[in-house]
Amino acid sequence: MTEITARPLTAGAFAPFGTVIARRPEPDMLINQGLCGRHHDLARPDIVNGTTGISLFDAQPRSLPYRLDMVERHPLGSQAFLPMSETSFLVIVAPDEGGRPGTPLAFLTAPGEGIQIARNIWHGVLTPLAPPGLFAVIDRIGEGPNLEEHWFDAPYMITAG
Amino acid sequence: MTEITARPLTAGAFAPFGTVIARRPEPDMLINQGLCGRHHDLARPDIVNGTTGISLFDAQPRSLPYRLDMVERHPLGSQAFLPMSETSFLVIVAPDEGGRPGTPLAFLTAPGEGIQIARNIWHGVLTPLAPPGLFAVIDRIGEGPNLEEHWFDAPYMITAG
Repeated sequence: MTEITARPLTAGAFAPFGTVIARRPEPDMLINQGLCGRHHDLARPDIVNGTTGISLFDAQPRSLPYRLDMVERHPLGSQAFLPMSETSFLVIVAPDEGGRPGTPLAFLTAPGEGIQIARNIWHGVLTPLAPPGLFAVIDRIGEGPNLEEHWFDAPYMITAG
Repeated sequence: MTEITARPLTAGAFAPFGTVIARRPEPDMLINQGLCGRHHDLARPDIVNGTTGISLFDAQPRSLPYRLDMVERHPLGSQAFLPMSETSFLVIVAPDEGGRPGTPLAFLTAPGEGIQIARNIWHGVLTPLAPPGLFAVIDRIGEGPNLEEHWFDAPYMITAG
């Protein structure tokens, strides 16, 4: 089985697939009488034919090595995942190659980081690596088909490296 | 100084001021081959003359009793606060009475809960009660004045009860 090593998430490596939602080295502004740093406008939802909504995802933790059988994408909207615990999670994305996913890439977030997966980008399902697997999700609320799945003929194995 | 006792946050008591973003007793749907519960569409941003954006707030923890000197409101947008740690935080809101805030109410969230403060509702600044005070914030990105502050002539003291 082809192995893929999960790498620490960086904004640059993730840029073709979405946005890392993390504190900047310094906040953009200090608010609330200096007691709160605002890291401003880190990501914007990209929603077609629908509304932006806030949901919670409660996912079962996985572990590495992780067997990757499928990826999915949402043609009508971006999807932001914000962990509600100080834990790292696994992020899997893949480039599109003629309507099918190419070889996936795997990243490990640092605690205190979220991501937004851009609209129509192939990605793995939500894979926390520790309990609780509770995430705030900012994505599209609307009717119509917004999910495309691709099951790999040969699964990949994601390893910690 | 007038004392106000912080009460556990409930959806019903908070309804005049906004929305509690918390898991329902059962998820609305199971996704990802049954490994993830989706608690769907718990809150929708209400944004006027602007765009919905995702920011991070990094706030200094406070403690109870807490002296409340001011509240603020945002006429052009709701503001959702989603804690990125498993901690409780203090939520202060106040009814409007002829353009000024009436007597405030104080609530304590449970870990794993967020809130959305509705547009133009008087509220206290973000007040985590334990480190890290890191929150994802879903609010309005746009130009123009969107902040009204009210400083109380006589501050309130928020207590744990």
